[in-house]
Amino acid sequence: MPALSKKGLSMPASPIRKLVPYAEAAKKRGVEVIHLNIGQPDIKTPTHALDAVRKAPIEVLEYSRSEGNESYRIKLAQYYSKHGIEVTPEEILITTGGSEALSFVMGCIADPGDEIIIPEPFYANYNGFSVANGVKVIPLASDISDNFALPPIESFEDYITPRTRAILLCNPGNPTGYLYSQEEVQKLSELVRKHDLFLIADEVYREFAYDGKEHYSILQEPGMEAHAVVVDSVSKRYSMCGARIGCIVSRNKDLMAVCLKFAQARLSPPTLAQIASEAALDTPQSYFDDVIREYTARRDLLLEALSKIKGIRIARPQGAFYCMVELPVADADHFAQWLLEEFQWEGATVMVAPAAGFYATPGLGTREVRIAYVLEREQLRKAVQILGKALEIYPG
Amino acid sequence: MPALSKKGLSMPASPIRKLVPYAEAAKKRGVEVIHLNIGQPDIKTPTHALDAVRKAPIEVLEYSRSEGNESYRIKLAQYYSKHGIEVTPEEILITTGGSEALSFVMGCIADPGDEIIIPEPFYANYNGFSVANGVKVIPLASDISDNFALPPIESFEDYITPRTRAILLCNPGNPTGYLYSQEEVQKLSELVRKHDLFLIADEVYREFAYDGKEHYSILQEPGMEAHAVVVDSVSKRYSMCGARIGCIVSRNKDLMAVCLKFAQARLSPPTLAQIASEAALDTPQSYFDDVIREYTARRDLLLEALSKIKGIRIARPQGAFYCMVELPVADADHFAQWLLEEFQWEGATVMVAPAAGFYATPGLGTREVRIAYVLEREQLRKAVQILGKALEIYPG
Ligand SMILES: Cc1ncc(COP(=O)(O)O)c(C=O)c1O
Ligand SMILES: Cc1ncc(COP(=O)(O)O)c(C=O)c1O
Repeated sequence: MPALSKKGLSMPASPIRKLVPYAEAAKKRGVEVIHLNIGQPDIKTPTHALDAVRKAPIEVLEYSRSEGNESYRIKLAQYYSKHGIEVTPEEILITTGGSEALSFVMGCIADPGDEIIIPEPFYANYNGFSVANGVKVIPLASDISDNFALPPIESFEDYITPRTRAILLCNPGNPTGYLYSQEEVQKLSELVRKHDLFLIADEVYREFAYDGKEHYSILQEPGMEAHAVVVDSVSKRYSMCGARIGCIVSRNKDLMAVCLKFAQARLSPPTLAQIASEAALDTPQSYFDDVIREYTARRDLLLEALSKIKGIRIARPQGAFYCMVELPVADADHFAQWLLEEFQWEGATVMVAPAAGFYATPGLGTREVRIAYVLEREQLRKAVQILGKALEIYPG
Repeated sequence: MPALSKKGLSMPASPIRKLVPYAEAAKKRGVEVIHLNIGQPDIKTPTHALDAVRKAPIEVLEYSRSEGNESYRIKLAQYYSKHGIEVTPEEILITTGGSEALSFVMGCIADPGDEIIIPEPFYANYNGFSVANGVKVIPLASDISDNFALPPIESFEDYITPRTRAILLCNPGNPTGYLYSQEEVQKLSELVRKHDLFLIADEVYREFAYDGKEHYSILQEPGMEAHAVVVDSVSKRYSMCGARIGCIVSRNKDLMAVCLKFAQARLSPPTLAQIASEAALDTPQSYFDDVIREYTARRDLLLEALSKIKGIRIARPQGAFYCMVELPVADADHFAQWLLEEFQWEGATVMVAPAAGFYATPGLGTREVRIAYVLEREQLRKAVQILGKALEIYPG
């Protein structure tokens, strides 16, 4: 049999893949599985976004331009301007999800063997895109004890080598829920300018900031024209994960020219979904206000309910819709599997995402799990209750 | 300014990109530009495919499974079965266009520095995916004098090295229009088995075979379970280029498992377009019969009209919708630009794709152009007339 590539064979599996068969088996046994493990919002997609597709007078479903429809890019520039970010349509390239944006950006800035520093825990698929591009992820640990704030800026310098090409930030963070402050963004910006690196910010959760806090984008930071690259997506913002529309935003013309070449090779982002995404930009602020109110209520409920469980530590999230929790267990992987395989309470159990998969450093996060609060409050309440009951009797 | 990657900087531009500004300038001057350069069919998308999206009762536009919707993969397996290819849904992975399929397959089978042999001229974006994956394209020249048939099988052996991972075939060919015979496919199959290589066939034009010929897929060839990988797409088949749905089909389980990891990293192919693509499978044979009849008529008209121009050589296409033509000019690049910059006949000119960009070997194809017959017959007739007039006075 012909051999597969080394890189293909080292592509990582998703942190929860191992658990999927156990969840399926539990469901087969008639146990209700409450999913705290997913990043797919349950909020309704704005109807006018879907209606725009339904009403589009399409006869031939054509390729769009490789950089995305111009009308969409123009409106997107206006969207950013409303959020305090002044960019032109030429500084925006439409991609097939934030995923493709991440993949293109890595390809544009790093050759095999080059390094990207990423505070851990981080979005697990950064590993996949790195392996696919031959890029070495250099993790820098942040800690649950201070809600996963930015590690001291000096510690970044310890990790910078001649192969370092960029620092990658997820703001607000998946899985941490941490919202970086303006001061933290400034410090990092100074650092990347000093070392002539790129600063890539994955801002797909930018709209999800709580407690009256405002998201501060790296594109709002002056002097970052050559350095700042933002990855964005409609997936979470409009609860349109299946659209597969994202974008790269940068004022660095040379970078954008190279990104465009990657985009041209794959011809075009999805046409129907671009129509939906353009229409989604007309979503009124009231939709977001409602969504933020809902997520805040869920988070508060989650934190309150969790705080009653003995022996756990919680990172208080101020953005996105994830919450990292350290459990009084030796091995969260084993606990998560046990929940699905052996436990039930009143006919139900929960599925959590063990956090070790969000860390690149072996041994970190082994007692932590990520809980996504994309469930209705009653379900969330029940899920935490189950978690509490389970921890009371878990033998591990 | 931080440096971009070497690989990013060596990403190739599309062969016609250079011409785009000249075409735009011509249009600004009021000259009609007839596009013979594009690969986007003008045929209408089957209405039931678009209607399926319009009527889908979607409330939350969710991610699909990374490998694509199960219902779609089941129906797709039936489609292949109808075409004499027995595969299971598990042997199909849905991708974001044939483009992503190509990119995943290269990543799965080749590490940077590995080689893939491709008969040239070939679809220019194979270069882009190769550069992105660090893969070396080893071109093997086929020739207009025999319609770009498969080069002698011995000549492949001359190019096989320890780094060779695969042979990539486009069947029927873009830009050649060549439809490989069963015998040619068999010979190649033996060869890849002998040398333990993959045989990748880009069969996105499989449905477009003329003169009563039948497309013979590498998946129909026995003994190729471990070796055969097909890349497919709805783009041309249903005139749905903007959908961005394609697939990888292979019976090699290990390969499919690695492909799935690439797919998981990017989460999901587009959901709306999968609905359209699944519905498109219900397209009646009469649609294809009509389309084939139309393309055959266009091709015949094109060949006849071209044959009246002195000094040209034509590769007779029996598949896809492209025709390679050797012109009595020294430099087709220059001629194509001149057509847009300096020439017009009765207020119109044509845009052709210079063929050098489809060859990897410098100096090959410099007198050839690719003509796509995705235009109505009247336009096509006029376009060839313009081409003839232009060649009469072209000074090059
Ligand atoms: C931090 C982060 N970045 C990027 C993505 C990719 O999202 P998409 O490709 O759907 O835009 C996700 C999805 O979960 C995410 O959590
Ligand atoms: C030979 C060939 N392969 C693959 C593709 C990619 O098509 P898509 O990504 O739209 O499926 C094309 C498009 O022109 C093509 O001509």
